[in-house]
Amino acid sequence: MKLPQISSHRRVACVSLSGVSKPPRGLVQEKMTENAVFSQNMVLTIDTMNPNVKKVEYAVRGPIVQRAVQIEKELREGVKKPFTEVIKANIGDAHAMGQQPITFFRQVLALCSYPELLKDNMFPEDAKSRARRILQACGGSSLGAYSASQGIDCVRQDVARYIERRDGGVPCDPDNVYLTSGASDGIVTMLKLLVCGEGASKTGVMISIPQYPLYSAALAELGAVQVNYYLNEEKCWSMDLSELERSLAEARKHCNPKVLCIINPGNPTGQVQSRQCIEDVIRFAAKEHLFLMADEVYQDNVYAEGCQFHSFKKVLFELGPQYSNTVELVSFHSTSKCYMGECGFRGGYMEVINMDPEVKAQLIKLVSVRLCPAVPGQALMDMVVNSPQPGEPSYTTFMKERTAILSLLAEKAKLTEEILNTVPGITCNPVQGAMYSFPNISLPQKAIKEAKALGQAPDMFYCMKMLEETGICLVPGSGFGQKDGTYHFRMTILPPTDKLKLLLAKVKEFHQKFTRQYS
Amino acid sequence: MKLPQISSHRRVACVSLSGVSKPPRGLVQEKMTENAVFSQNMVLTIDTMNPNVKKVEYAVRGPIVQRAVQIEKELREGVKKPFTEVIKANIGDAHAMGQQPITFFRQVLALCSYPELLKDNMFPEDAKSRARRILQACGGSSLGAYSASQGIDCVRQDVARYIERRDGGVPCDPDNVYLTSGASDGIVTMLKLLVCGEGASKTGVMISIPQYPLYSAALAELGAVQVNYYLNEEKCWSMDLSELERSLAEARKHCNPKVLCIINPGNPTGQVQSRQCIEDVIRFAAKEHLFLMADEVYQDNVYAEGCQFHSFKKVLFELGPQYSNTVELVSFHSTSKCYMGECGFRGGYMEVINMDPEVKAQLIKLVSVRLCPAVPGQALMDMVVNSPQPGEPSYTTFMKERTAILSLLAEKAKLTEEILNTVPGITCNPVQGAMYSFPNISLPQKAIKEAKALGQAPDMFYCMKMLEETGICLVPGSGFGQKDGTYHFRMTILPPTDKLKLLLAKVKEFHQKFTRQYS
Repeated sequence: MKLPQISSHRRVACVSLSGVSKPPRGLVQEKMTENAVFSQNMVLTIDTMNPNVKKVEYAVRGPIVQRAVQIEKELREGVKKPFTEVIKANIGDAHAMGQQPITFFRQVLALCSYPELLKDNMFPEDAKSRARRILQACGGSSLGAYSASQGIDCVRQDVARYIERRDGGVPCDPDNVYLTSGASDGIVTMLKLLVCGEGASKTGVMISIPQYPLYSAALAELGAVQVNYYLNEEKCWSMDLSELERSLAEARKHCNPKVLCIINPGNPTGQVQSRQCIEDVIRFAAKEHLFLMADEVYQDNVYAEGCQFHSFKKVLFELGPQYSNTVELVSFHSTSKCYMGECGFRGGYMEVINMDPEVKAQLIKLVSVRLCPAVPGQALMDMVVNSPQPGEPSYTTFMKERTAILSLLAEKAKLTEEILNTVPGITCNPVQGAMYSFPNISLPQKAIKEAKALGQAPDMFYCMKMLEETGICLVPGSGFGQKDGTYHFRMTILPPTDKLKLLLAKVKEFHQKFTRQYS
Repeated sequence: MKLPQISSHRRVACVSLSGVSKPPRGLVQEKMTENAVFSQNMVLTIDTMNPNVKKVEYAVRGPIVQRAVQIEKELREGVKKPFTEVIKANIGDAHAMGQQPITFFRQVLALCSYPELLKDNMFPEDAKSRARRILQACGGSSLGAYSASQGIDCVRQDVARYIERRDGGVPCDPDNVYLTSGASDGIVTMLKLLVCGEGASKTGVMISIPQYPLYSAALAELGAVQVNYYLNEEKCWSMDLSELERSLAEARKHCNPKVLCIINPGNPTGQVQSRQCIEDVIRFAAKEHLFLMADEVYQDNVYAEGCQFHSFKKVLFELGPQYSNTVELVSFHSTSKCYMGECGFRGGYMEVINMDPEVKAQLIKLVSVRLCPAVPGQALMDMVVNSPQPGEPSYTTFMKERTAILSLLAEKAKLTEEILNTVPGITCNPVQGAMYSFPNISLPQKAIKEAKALGQAPDMFYCMKMLEETGICLVPGSGFGQKDGTYHFRMTILPPTDKLKLLLAKVKEFHQKFTRQYS
């Protein structure tokens, strides 16, 4: 990706559309260039654009990553650097890190894309039958037809059966399942329905800090109030009821908090919530009248001994009808994470529980405006929830591939935690699940001061320096939120083991050098 | 798609989150059912949800289509009807109507999905080389990796070269090209950037009436002011400068109009704008300081003798630097229409011209929150802009398929216009381009009165009756907007010729019967 050229001149005056001049902005000595003259007459400028969009931040693809892309270009052009390649550990993008796709999934996708292949002998029968089933459910038997806006019927049925198996038989109605373009799409759609009001009645949305910045970005864009609750780093990033209570009480002073978002397993923090914790959260939501949004895209990514994924829905139903008939919950899943890592297909679904039927009709109307999620992503979601079963020809290979990927991730999670914890000044909680470590880093006062003088968050300063000196691309903790005075970075565990070891060694070396330099 | 169950009880009271009761709503004699008791305690109800979402309407998948899906289900269940199948002419969904995908496109997609096939001899070399090129540009050589948020580099380069060829050499910078999830995604993204303000300074967006309801839906959701300008039905749905002036002057009294949207070739109206008209519009936008949004997704769908597609960009550059250096323009294209009709892949791109570099940086940030458009759709977009060339093995077949599809559409456009114009009380403009006819229908006063008594738009009443009696699914003109007192429907020209003839005969018969019945 080439970076956009940022104009080096700032406009010195700006005429608004109504013709009233605003006072000059920026330094007077700046040259009134041709560009600036042009810019002051433009309809869409940084001054006239939607201010909510300006507030949006998204660190996972922010300045560090843009600089990383630039450095890669410089390396290609022969610019000398103290390293020969950029190692990107900024984003949960498994295939980009060399993870191979699941053979069965891709066979079915090829068959669906070019049904002539159904005549070929090279594909196993179960792949062919899955492809036929999907194609029959498509208009004109083509992935190229729009699907129903809520998603292809048979895919939603398969999702419902998958959820029932996962949750030990708790029933799932396919009518409550909506296919989405990745989980992000579902999350934004739900927030769109929920967010309204102005001033003290503006919707507040409780999100964990640290958080995945899709949430803060979507809230900024929608003009909602972001209500922070802090995860407990000392207790392996668990959720504390008292902290939820504090956060909610604070928020009620200035907005109308009505949504509570949870990411489990955690992003960027890698924790797996205990069953007890989930119960507490559900009771809290019921008592405090909060709509629950459970981001469960890492549901297969659980590595730590004694940890287990519990879906919010299952726990909700196990708490009995007092809860299961009243608490409003939406849960998100995706094709992008777990063992499949198929981010590029933008597949996903959400299941809504206890949604007002009138609101459901509004939701269907809202998603219909965008017609449908991409159909190949829907097909892929179907593979995930309807994977090869014992006795089917693809079962053995599928299980071998799946197990290998998840075991390797578990190894890398352990490795990452262990090596990071050998570095004085770095403290890393166990990576119980998901795809990230989020270690706490001690930064010397001198470094903090220098960063602040540059107008940078101290951990941004640290990560940018690490990128320039080692070629390693991490995301600073400030991009996810953290307690004041603490500093972190997020690092994925996805690079191939050799590269991951190299990366961790470089981080160690850099941190020690950085600490010496600023002490 | 199964329809959501709409609660038959309306809540009789509603307790807001702050605990203050609102006065009872609805009829007091309504039973306080369990459901109602439950509903009054919910967080998300029709009363507490985002009111902007409630205002959204999208006729193309509205009540008529929902009823059509229901009728299909009834037919499957053996319910007797005066017809045996529902014929859907409500949506531009070519594959669903039996149009076959372009072989070359699907071969490349299969190769990209399952690269093992690159070893197979069944695929032509040009398909393989296209697939290799796309895979090389993907992270880890996989469609499953996230792409750059702006879209895959080499695809944007191919788009730029395509635009240059299309526009007779007018240069295109790949940095101005953004890949999108269908054109809808691009349109909504641009409107998000543009819309802001409150009261009299709220952004106004000028859209044609009749319009494609994505526009009105997006504007409702964003809380922008929809500014209508009427197309001239008497002059084959052309744009009148005087009407633009009237509309703008009106709008300036109560909002800040800063965007002018054009759909060419037209949806739902099927007209192809003349070069002169486009020139006039550009001069108007320049003079009136308006940002131009040109929806050009039907650029290959031009059928009428003497009509030709002129891109706004080409005309802009031909008007000289006074315009080409100043007028802000964005143009949208898609994989969903033209000869390919690959709606399900949600591929598309937009090109921005004269966008403030600071705003471009904001745009990149905004699209990065959603990570990337689905990669298979990007690959497909690449096929469209980089189709087989003379001398390549797939060229002959590709051209044969492409020409056959476009010729058939031209035939069906003519056929539709001709047959509709034989019906007394139906007047249909030539279907010069796109995929729709939008005939004017005379409705008897008695029918209008009966519709109004039912709280329905008269053409909704008409279309619903047609659906129930004939199984034909059209979209009423009121879903697109029309001059007061006029009535229309939108009908696609996509059904296979035999079915289209049957459909037109049924429309004719129904219209005559309806007219007799209500005269």
